Amino acid sequence: MRSAIRTGALRGLPPSTTAPLHSGMKTARSCTPRRVSVPPASAFHSKSPDYSEAPAAAAKLPEAEPTPPPTPRDRITLADIKERRAKAGRLIAPTAASCNADMFKAPQTTGKPKAKRWDHLLTKESTLRAPCKLKQAAKNLNNPGLISLGGGLPCPEYFPISSLTLHIPNPPHFSETATLAGGTDATIGKYDASAAPTPTPTPNPNPETTTAAAPEYDLSIALNYGQATGSAQMTRFATEHVELLGAPPYADWGVCLTIGSTGALEQALRMLCDGPGRGDTLLTEEFSFSTALETAAPLRVGVVGVEMDGEGLVPEAMERVLDGWDVEARGGRAKPRVLYTVPSGQNPTGATQSVQRRGAIYEVARRHDVFILEDEPYYYLQMQEPGTEPPASVEAFLEGLIPTYLSMDVDGRVMRMDSFSKVVVPGSRMGWITASEQIVERFIRHAEVANQGPNGFSQVILHKLLDERWGHEGYFRWLMNLRMEYTKRRDAMSAACDEFLPKEVVSWQPPQAGMFQWLKVNYELHPSASTKSIMDIEEEIFNSCISKGVLVARGSWFRAEQDIPPSGLYLRATYAAATPENMREAIRRLGEAIRESYQL
Amino acid sequence: MRSAIRTGALRGLPPSTTAPLHSGMKTARSCTPRRVSVPPASAFHSKSPDYSEAPAAAAKLPEAEPTPPPTPRDRITLADIKERRAKAGRLIAPTAASCNADMFKAPQTTGKPKAKRWDHLLTKESTLRAPCKLKQAAKNLNNPGLISLGGGLPCPEYFPISSLTLHIPNPPHFSETATLAGGTDATIGKYDASAAPTPTPTPNPNPETTTAAAPEYDLSIALNYGQATGSAQMTRFATEHVELLGAPPYADWGVCLTIGSTGALEQALRMLCDGPGRGDTLLTEEFSFSTALETAAPLRVGVVGVEMDGEGLVPEAMERVLDGWDVEARGGRAKPRVLYTVPSGQNPTGATQSVQRRGAIYEVARRHDVFILEDEPYYYLQMQEPGTEPPASVEAFLEGLIPTYLSMDVDGRVMRMDSFSKVVVPGSRMGWITASEQIVERFIRHAEVANQGPNGFSQVILHKLLDERWGHEGYFRWLMNLRMEYTKRRDAMSAACDEFLPKEVVSWQPPQAGMFQWLKVNYELHPSASTKSIMDIEEEIFNSCISKGVLVARGSWFRAEQDIPPSGLYLRATYAAATPENMREAIRRLGEAIRESYQL
Repeated sequence: MRSAIRTGALRGLPPSTTAPLHSGMKTARSCTPRRVSVPPASAFHSKSPDYSEAPAAAAKLPEAEPTPPPTPRDRITLADIKERRAKAGRLIAPTAASCNADMFKAPQTTGKPKAKRWDHLLTKESTLRAPCKLKQAAKNLNNPGLISLGGGLPCPEYFPISSLTLHIPNPPHFSETATLAGGTDATIGKYDASAAPTPTPTPNPNPETTTAAAPEYDLSIALNYGQATGSAQMTRFATEHVELLGAPPYADWGVCLTIGSTGALEQALRMLCDGPGRGDTLLTEEFSFSTALETAAPLRVGVVGVEMDGEGLVPEAMERVLDGWDVEARGGRAKPRVLYTVPSGQNPTGATQSVQRRGAIYEVARRHDVFILEDEPYYYLQMQEPGTEPPASVEAFLEGLIPTYLSMDVDGRVMRMDSFSKVVVPGSRMGWITASEQIVERFIRHAEVANQGPNGFSQVILHKLLDERWGHEGYFRWLMNLRMEYTKRRDAMSAACDEFLPKEVVSWQPPQAGMFQWLKVNYELHPSASTKSIMDIEEEIFNSCISKGVLVARGSWFRAEQDIPPSGLYLRATYAAATPENMREAIRRLGEAIRESYQL
Repeated sequence: MRSAIRTGALRGLPPSTTAPLHSGMKTARSCTPRRVSVPPASAFHSKSPDYSEAPAAAAKLPEAEPTPPPTPRDRITLADIKERRAKAGRLIAPTAASCNADMFKAPQTTGKPKAKRWDHLLTKESTLRAPCKLKQAAKNLNNPGLISLGGGLPCPEYFPISSLTLHIPNPPHFSETATLAGGTDATIGKYDASAAPTPTPTPNPNPETTTAAAPEYDLSIALNYGQATGSAQMTRFATEHVELLGAPPYADWGVCLTIGSTGALEQALRMLCDGPGRGDTLLTEEFSFSTALETAAPLRVGVVGVEMDGEGLVPEAMERVLDGWDVEARGGRAKPRVLYTVPSGQNPTGATQSVQRRGAIYEVARRHDVFILEDEPYYYLQMQEPGTEPPASVEAFLEGLIPTYLSMDVDGRVMRMDSFSKVVVPGSRMGWITASEQIVERFIRHAEVANQGPNGFSQVILHKLLDERWGHEGYFRWLMNLRMEYTKRRDAMSAACDEFLPKEVVSWQPPQAGMFQWLKVNYELHPSASTKSIMDIEEEIFNSCISKGVLVARGSWFRAEQDIPPSGLYLRATYAAATPENMREAIRRLGEAIRESYQL
């Protein structure tokens, strides 16, 4: 019985790698009197009598699909995840437990191919990375009864926080007012995960949320050192989230938690682009996220901006750049082998690539063997189409989202970056990447020395909120609510633009996703166009805006290639931060600044 | 009156840089109805009538030093900090406020020289770093009344956590039992910092701790994007902490919060050492922290290990390496210009450099113009000397600590790395560096694209705990308590070693600091010494340990130069993690493994 449960909890893995998620070594590694008195290992399995006989145990199986179909499904459903978790039982992942996505993925069907290898693309730096010796040695902790005098992990007895309590919304009542009036307190204790499951769980104040009968994560684990992959607890969440959104069509994909996509991109560039040695060049949109450009520049990675239209990067333009690449004419720069793209609500242009557009770009990438860095902080801020009803269910919401590059990546040439920054809190400094096992493994090696993975507070707080309390369904409902809020904000800005901007010189397209309104100002119509440059007029308008009390971003900050003449005059305005009233006033000021400059 | 307060709050700064810490732009940037209704700016200054007339306002000045001496003091005292804070008033540092140590340092005496410049040492990568355009633009937010449509900062209305409550110890009652029985709940709200100060503050349950009358930090600030330097709130704490410990003797020093010293070291190496281009080489102890070595290796930075004795790195040996450096004999490697050292409780040897030793090493560094990376995670784990009484006061504790390199750094050739990992929680992934302004500025430029500084949860939680609730004094009392706990743990391990290890082949010195017991096993006395290598026997003992149920670290993992023959057979055992009983059993097993291998 016991061994069957273990297999169930970690199916698809060879026995040697399953051990970290069992409790065998736990008592031996503990160092506090509390820990010594925890129940024996058997109590940590959810199928132990205490737990399975609990009257109101969580994660009861829905009856919808009694016999799973024998063929692979395109997309894992919420019901699948619930079923899988119920079968697997309580997750046992103590301090610094090693883990990977395979522990949590649906069983892999044999028909799926493996991802392409990228040995030829990896930089010398990345290739030279060896696993962290001390983290490797931690594997021996799987041996039952082993006492560790190995790693210098402080004893949680000396962690000066005995519990953390969050006050959080109950889905679907997400507003601040509703949360203050009727939210829930969720407490994270220091030793929750090693406590025995309560036979009679405390009543769940919100029956719509999934509350685990016994916590699987706590401060003693989260606040100690961990693996650079992030915790098993949040790795499970990210893995399942990827499946719910649409997993890659190849077999050996994995995830690794990150310290946010800013850090993840720097790691990716150091892994895939070698500026000084190989003369590598990065492809991106002609206007691109300025911080991404600032990440590449000191690495001496060249950047080539590809022409855009209303749907973002133009695949034909990308093909032209690659087809016509002349190393000599490009000053010795190698033909680009990596594309960095923000497909949804692109920063700064707000452009969103349609599914057809993504497919076409992917095909160009295949033809030229280009690796794709898919940066999607705004993915869930895909707006509600005007005049349409919001999705009636989470399933409908997911179906309505534009498919990711990841979900169409038959080769394993995509590394997707997800982030909690725009949709939960930026201060979490946490997200994850999804890519082929080879890419993920090299990424982890770098994370071990660059950051050791995301911090424990964010991991345990987001786990409590998103996984234990809300569950995937509650989190998707949060995202559904958020996109409606951003739709309202975008509409408020569009209305203000309509009201105050001089249409004779400014043109714009309300974005379908993201946080940014991109404004094209017609340079040719400027009265001083013959004597002043685009940059001069952009600066004049920017300074005039500042003196009138509005800050907008200058389009030139985002130019991928700063050394070629600008193609036009642009401004970026965000509708994320200001109140609707302030936004209206700000756009009024902007209109005034433009009118003055254009003498309208 | 108003302007005098502003000057008081931010003295030592030109007016243009003081604005971020005032509340001028606050209303304009806010986006929630709550925010719009906050009191006008004047209420944010602590000297406003409401606050200064509050009956029990915190941070009352002690009467000890009514007239500060006119000459600079060697070390800032707790009373100085209290006085300075009382004069400055409530810190106003809203979302993404920029800051630097100068805002919080004692007024600089004119007599102090500036730090040496390091232009010749900075790598091409570091030199090429430009400031982050979007973060630069945030400076315009200082303009009163400005509305930002600039940065894509999400509105805190959409942060799904309305408060965080910590249960924490009341100094000096730090044990888990005391905290459970009589600890304090400290709550962090979403908009605490923009709330008006309460005229009658809630009574402080623990009169020994410093409780600010009005919170200066909250979730709306901490969980949004911030500057890569870390928050003003924690920058102030780190700056003052450095001063209490002993600030550098030059004028232009600064601090920058980090994501922990692992990440800080990688940033430092990329800033100061260029392996492929310049053939740079790093000096370190002959046995060094394996993760540090693993950080340098993929950067192709050469490593040269310097001979050690019981006090760690031997300055004469360092001088010999530098004096006799032969680029050709070293395969084209440049003469080392950077030293990485762990002065207290060195990892793995446990060696602690005396003040004389530090001085001698610093002099060698001066003679050869070597920059020093001072990595001090274990600094506060300096043990209580046997038979001595613990320090009676915080001042006595600070006086008894071995001076830092930083405090003797007349040139500005030291970058010190401090970390909360070993003394608060590793999962905070947070620490700070202290160095000259030039070094700190280059470090920040890298942090902007590598990690964006430490996460907001850690910053706001540690601020609530260490700054607002405990204050510097409470935190030092925590550290004093912690070193006593580690002294007990070290003694337990020493006793176990005395009891179980075969002294005829194993020798050791109980460490004066840190977490590690280093064990020298006499290879020459091994019965198979003539046929088996040091590495063979080390492996044999390690494997035997694993099969007997104890994990120790192999000395060879820490060898700075893996390509030269090992000088001896060593093992590292930590007393940080296991209970005293388990530690005793583990050392018994280790003794057994060694005896068996040596046929004793």
